Amino acid sequence: MIPPLEEGVIRVIPLGGVEEIGRNMTVIEYGNDIVIADIGFQFSNENTPGVDYILPNTKYLEERKHKIRAIAITHGHLDHIGGIPYLIERLGNPPIYTREMGALLIKKRQTEFPHLPPLDIRTIDADDKAIPLSPTMKLRFFGVTHSIPDSTGIIVETPHGDIVITGDVRIENEGGIPVDKETEQYKMFRDRNILLFSMDSTGAEQPGFSPSEKTILKNIDQIVANAPGRMILATFATQVERLIEFFNIAKRYNRKVVIEGRSMKNNVEIIKHLNLVDTSHIIQLEEIAKYPPNQILMIATGAQGEEFAALMRMSNSTHKFIKLQRSDTILLSSSIIPGNEMAVQKLKDNLYRHDCKIITVLDSNVHTSGHGKRGEIEWLHKQIPYRFFMPIHGHHYMLKMHAELARNIGCAPENIIVPDNGSIIEIQDRGTKLVRLKEKAPCEDIAVEGLNIGPISEVVIRDRKMLAEDGIFVVMALVNTRTGRLKKSPDIIARGFVYLRESQELLSEARNIIKNSIESVTVGSHPINFDYARNAVTEDVSRFLFQKTAKAPIVIPVIIGV
Amino acid sequence: MIPPLEEGVIRVIPLGGVEEIGRNMTVIEYGNDIVIADIGFQFSNENTPGVDYILPNTKYLEERKHKIRAIAITHGHLDHIGGIPYLIERLGNPPIYTREMGALLIKKRQTEFPHLPPLDIRTIDADDKAIPLSPTMKLRFFGVTHSIPDSTGIIVETPHGDIVITGDVRIENEGGIPVDKETEQYKMFRDRNILLFSMDSTGAEQPGFSPSEKTILKNIDQIVANAPGRMILATFATQVERLIEFFNIAKRYNRKVVIEGRSMKNNVEIIKHLNLVDTSHIIQLEEIAKYPPNQILMIATGAQGEEFAALMRMSNSTHKFIKLQRSDTILLSSSIIPGNEMAVQKLKDNLYRHDCKIITVLDSNVHTSGHGKRGEIEWLHKQIPYRFFMPIHGHHYMLKMHAELARNIGCAPENIIVPDNGSIIEIQDRGTKLVRLKEKAPCEDIAVEGLNIGPISEVVIRDRKMLAEDGIFVVMALVNTRTGRLKKSPDIIARGFVYLRESQELLSEARNIIKNSIESVTVGSHPINFDYARNAVTEDVSRFLFQKTAKAPIVIPVIIGV
Repeated sequence: MIPPLEEGVIRVIPLGGVEEIGRNMTVIEYGNDIVIADIGFQFSNENTPGVDYILPNTKYLEERKHKIRAIAITHGHLDHIGGIPYLIERLGNPPIYTREMGALLIKKRQTEFPHLPPLDIRTIDADDKAIPLSPTMKLRFFGVTHSIPDSTGIIVETPHGDIVITGDVRIENEGGIPVDKETEQYKMFRDRNILLFSMDSTGAEQPGFSPSEKTILKNIDQIVANAPGRMILATFATQVERLIEFFNIAKRYNRKVVIEGRSMKNNVEIIKHLNLVDTSHIIQLEEIAKYPPNQILMIATGAQGEEFAALMRMSNSTHKFIKLQRSDTILLSSSIIPGNEMAVQKLKDNLYRHDCKIITVLDSNVHTSGHGKRGEIEWLHKQIPYRFFMPIHGHHYMLKMHAELARNIGCAPENIIVPDNGSIIEIQDRGTKLVRLKEKAPCEDIAVEGLNIGPISEVVIRDRKMLAEDGIFVVMALVNTRTGRLKKSPDIIARGFVYLRESQELLSEARNIIKNSIESVTVGSHPINFDYARNAVTEDVSRFLFQKTAKAPIVIPVIIGV
Repeated sequence: MIPPLEEGVIRVIPLGGVEEIGRNMTVIEYGNDIVIADIGFQFSNENTPGVDYILPNTKYLEERKHKIRAIAITHGHLDHIGGIPYLIERLGNPPIYTREMGALLIKKRQTEFPHLPPLDIRTIDADDKAIPLSPTMKLRFFGVTHSIPDSTGIIVETPHGDIVITGDVRIENEGGIPVDKETEQYKMFRDRNILLFSMDSTGAEQPGFSPSEKTILKNIDQIVANAPGRMILATFATQVERLIEFFNIAKRYNRKVVIEGRSMKNNVEIIKHLNLVDTSHIIQLEEIAKYPPNQILMIATGAQGEEFAALMRMSNSTHKFIKLQRSDTILLSSSIIPGNEMAVQKLKDNLYRHDCKIITVLDSNVHTSGHGKRGEIEWLHKQIPYRFFMPIHGHHYMLKMHAELARNIGCAPENIIVPDNGSIIEIQDRGTKLVRLKEKAPCEDIAVEGLNIGPISEVVIRDRKMLAEDGIFVVMALVNTRTGRLKKSPDIIARGFVYLRESQELLSEARNIIKNSIESVTVGSHPINFDYARNAVTEDVSRFLFQKTAKAPIVIPVIIGV
């Protein structure tokens, strides 16, 4: 039972994103008002087979939805906006405050959910004045550098001071010296009363400063300049700032631009709409043959080895229009997202079958993350004069490393809390005391699975993992209820177990076992105890199969009395 | 149809290890003689659920087993010896030539297969003279540096020159300058007639030189020196050379050594047996409490996040004896093997819950690979005056990069072949011509799966993947063969699909669909066409389930006439 919020107390609850990368969502509650920072989702992984996405648990908010004044979006990446279509109705359709790029990405995504009521999106500028949400709460945005335009941090103003959330952030720098724009960006904090500072921890494990995006782009520029034939640039579609620069580079070297991949096309549409760069040199894929190879620059998805993405199709020669050739230069301007290593190896294997030139981050500085490393994190801490600190965005160990960094530069240990999903953090005593309640907000994982949205069923996931390893073995027998004898030889259906065509002997032995096992229970018993027969045959067949194959399929007995 | 081997022609066939990391096995054939270099296996991965190991295909050898004179083992790692128990009988139990460490590891492993006939192991020294295998073939070993003692390369001497295979190899160096021992090791090649040079490509993607093992050990030494409490060193059990040094470090700082993890214990037994280091300060796990924490150094498995390894059990507080405490220092002296990233993240998350000190390669140089990077590879090429070059050991793209490196330092393109598994490479015309036959040796993947060894069944693997995503939906109906009507409401068994307890409405609708679908075929038809009924219900139920859930379980219809 979560205690009611006391007067004068500020509550901060990360509902997601603090035990994983993804599904970022943080609640700020004061008096009668709640602001939500971001509604992200997380992609499924090897531990959740069959699941599409994982959402934060919003039960705490659903019970308090009358208090929700605003959803504040830091930027338009799916780990910050992906949960909106699945969760917005449960939250009572509150207004969504976002800058323009985020607004467009949210709207674009929403078109895939035509049954939902229209969103109440309120587009703001980063340098806007504070937005009053109630007599005691204001919302304010500030610009930060990330990998997509219009990235912002959030300030929630309360009578006791500010709650500051950076969103995803890196610091553009030259050899470890932040550029002037960065210093400017954070000047405003010098005179503010910052109660709680909360920051992205994704890069907390990496020492030093990232290479600057400027360096990356200079290197890519040179690679394009020297490419003898077609240039294929593969990167995350989410790297929108880089995508914009690719257009400039193409122009510089008199190359037409071809866009391949749905997410890339979507983002280019938005870039066009916002007039962020000259895109007049885009051509259609079908026009590619009209130009000599050295006048083509293709921007493609698939650098993570996604099975059906443009680059993978080119690599395995199933792309309709593009046949890779020796003079092509392919640049993977990306890092590998943990979990995608095997897919990227496969992609590289396929690409290298074509003898074209392939360049990755191992060869040259051609990618930098949107998340600051330790040097950047430390620098940013020093720009913000805060009292309390709560690391967010990352696995637990990343948050712990971030907390250690804060301690090392002078933050008192009692002023730092490393939260879990659902941790209820309170700032009590008029902003002087940081406390973690022993109670937690509901935090069970919520899965999107096909059309269903709900708690992840451990039973179903466990079955899937067992099925994936050893398959299923269904046994069917018709029992004469009068004699207790099988009417005919039992049937067997197996999937994912062993290759049955090559296992006739095993099947024939199994049929004997099944017959004997069932009849040992059913012959001469009136009435027949079918449950008992099912248990007996399951046990006997499982043991037999394990002895013969060392595999343990799920055995399902179907025994029917006739 | 593979053409017969012509007189004077040398055939080299990599049966495994050239399209993957693992299952290394290369055939050298001349006249009436065959030598096999290594018999490794590969660990299963996400693309082969339910498979234990993947073996090279040895059909080519099985058809020529009377010619096999020797199996030459380069070192005792499983990707070089792991296939022996599964394949040795098929090859006619030929003699295995190996140095002592390899011999002990092979014998240790063989004890797990007590039904197999004894192996014919012939232990040799690296500096032994050539071993005559036949009038026209000799076998010779040479010492190389890797991460396990007794690592060797192999020379197969033929009348036309040498076939040289390095095995896994790195070059110990100081800041990119190879140490004297390395130069010594390869001096012997200056005066030899080397026809074909074949070398490990695992590190071909990484630029520069690896940090030296000496540097690594110095860093680890300092970490141990400064650890305020217990020191827990986690590394690959296969890093035997490092393991040996851990004993010296422990002695230096007056720490008792505790060994945790089966593979680590096995390797320590072998170290003891070979008297490679003073192990008198080993204590049993149960004795740990007798010593102050700063006199304990534990060496543990589990740095890859293996679910039941010692370190994982400590991290999730299920270890029987070790409870982690704040003063513990845990060093992960390892890199992450591709595919293990998620498991290692989980491990780190668990470890950081304990507030102990954790150090990884990101914090300090505490691990170096046993496989040389590009700088080392290039240096080694320059020590060996060869005519032809064939990269082995690695994914295709690694081999291609290795081939490019060889070209860049002067090897003519026509003197390089990048093989696939089963490629038949011939050196023809008295050692002057390198040719890849258009025919291939059989190269279908062979899987160890439970007790079965055989070709991987694509059907079974595909079923497993489908089961893992969407589960199975078994439909059972009893049909009155006279009326064609169902005797009772159909039964449904589902696993891994959706959580059935929460899907009663779905099930009830499904039962209606099943009844209608079957009866639309069976009512009034004599005799009943059961195949047609099964197809109809499968189609109708699949469509219904997909409409309702957007999931596509495997639907299995069981329709029984009574």
